[in-house]
Amino acid sequence: MKLHILGCYAATPRTMSNPTSQVLEIKNHLFLIDCGEGTQVQLRKHKIKFSRISHIFISHLHGDHFFGLPGLISTFRLLGREKELHIYGPEGIKEAITLMLKLGKSWTNYPLIFHELTKNSSERIFEDDKVFIDTIPLDHRIYTNGFLFREKQGERKLNIEAVKKYPIDQAYYRKIKTGENAVLEDGQIIRNEELTFDPPRPWSYAYCSDTAFKPELVSKLKGIRVMYHEATFLDSESHLAKATRHATARQAATIARDAGVETLILGHFSTRYKEISAFAEEAESIFPGVLLADDGKQFVF
Amino acid sequence: MKLHILGCYAATPRTMSNPTSQVLEIKNHLFLIDCGEGTQVQLRKHKIKFSRISHIFISHLHGDHFFGLPGLISTFRLLGREKELHIYGPEGIKEAITLMLKLGKSWTNYPLIFHELTKNSSERIFEDDKVFIDTIPLDHRIYTNGFLFREKQGERKLNIEAVKKYPIDQAYYRKIKTGENAVLEDGQIIRNEELTFDPPRPWSYAYCSDTAFKPELVSKLKGIRVMYHEATFLDSESHLAKATRHATARQAATIARDAGVETLILGHFSTRYKEISAFAEEAESIFPGVLLADDGKQFVF
Repeated sequence: MKLHILGCYAATPRTMSNPTSQVLEIKNHLFLIDCGEGTQVQLRKHKIKFSRISHIFISHLHGDHFFGLPGLISTFRLLGREKELHIYGPEGIKEAITLMLKLGKSWTNYPLIFHELTKNSSERIFEDDKVFIDTIPLDHRIYTNGFLFREKQGERKLNIEAVKKYPIDQAYYRKIKTGENAVLEDGQIIRNEELTFDPPRPWSYAYCSDTAFKPELVSKLKGIRVMYHEATFLDSESHLAKATRHATARQAATIARDAGVETLILGHFSTRYKEISAFAEEAESIFPGVLLADDGKQFVF
Repeated sequence: MKLHILGCYAATPRTMSNPTSQVLEIKNHLFLIDCGEGTQVQLRKHKIKFSRISHIFISHLHGDHFFGLPGLISTFRLLGREKELHIYGPEGIKEAITLMLKLGKSWTNYPLIFHELTKNSSERIFEDDKVFIDTIPLDHRIYTNGFLFREKQGERKLNIEAVKKYPIDQAYYRKIKTGENAVLEDGQIIRNEELTFDPPRPWSYAYCSDTAFKPELVSKLKGIRVMYHEATFLDSESHLAKATRHATARQAATIARDAGVETLILGHFSTRYKEISAFAEEAESIFPGVLLADDGKQFVF
């Protein structure tokens, strides 16, 4: 699993800081999460293959999370895209995008499929044989969802040495890998644990931005391995966090600690702070294993 | 008069080339013309004072000319703007912008005033005591206007030495500067030409993008001093120009020559060309005095 941070700063794009966008590479998918203004240039800059993106997830309809979307959709058209593009986002996103395209008489020549989200409880919005994705309802000034990406548990790995000890036909290997016991011709049962190794633990990634401190996240995120949580402010500005429905580094770390995640990535920093290192310091007093997002950074798990 | 080119490339924004946007500085106004994605970052990069922009002119509703507008409008709000912002552009621009702001519950706290354009003939859209602005209907795939910015003729300059030769009271100087003759107490008339110098010749700037070759522009632009004309293609791709309702460098130069402008600035180059110098070569064979736009370039007249 790889996470490319294209932009992780709050509010307005600046010469050295981009609004929110990131690409999650998981099980051969490239999922684009949020799409602030300038995202397509960031994709080019970091040499991410546009054409591999087929699913775009928009958390909410504040400009710093979606004003790059009309341009990206138009660019896909100019690049001759033919395959489907799925957009997941709050109700209204379809109307906005289609109006922009209609005004320019610039309809896509590829299928553009909107999945508008309206629920206030978590729902499954994507599933294939390797990955599933649920929404994470967040608490912001407007309707907002985070997204929870989870690999499915893979097959068990054959312990070839152990298998060879018994007269087991290769035709049964597939079944054994799915967790079944082996039954020999004489009726003897060999327990699966003896014949296989545990598969690698699946990766999971929770994207939580933008949101006020929301302790209800903890139960939803129990056991998740990597969590990105917004930290627009430091604790010293917690009054601003409260007023704008954003979180502080301390609050993000509290969620991470209580949910027992392995790794916390902080982002969505307010550009009022000249140095972002203070975010790590504040969070680490509560939760070890804090990483700071930054534009262009790539995390490999 | 100063012209800041923020972006002058066609179609999609790239790491080293920005879609169309420029700022015309004339008679203490900063007029923003077109607003492709990333314009606000270009404004910051080139240290142009956001707050001095009160009038934005959008030629047409293709993304590379207006997808930066919702973000710029939002940033003005975040910067605490209070004064009016006027947007001139094709019908539909108001609906698009207001929808984007509504979805984010991000209404501006400053007056946002739309002037929607629908006419197919030139019309006056702005006038104050120093400048006036007319539309220039263009010929593109969708409804498109260029814009013609003209300084008003200033007052004549007093020739103090000449004036002092006569018994003329200072109270009459204002009238003389407006072009009136002086009438002495004995009834003698002193002709204005003897008492004043010609005022500086007013500057004028015609912005023509995007458009197919449109010879009808010539009569409208007679005597204009500086013309920006799109040259998306070279003559070798004139079939593409025709098909997409764009112009070639040769066609832009033909308009410039026939209208008798002083200076032609070429822009809106297709990114298919690695070198833009060929645009100047092609145009100069028809019209001398060709300048090439480029992102970040500033022309001072």
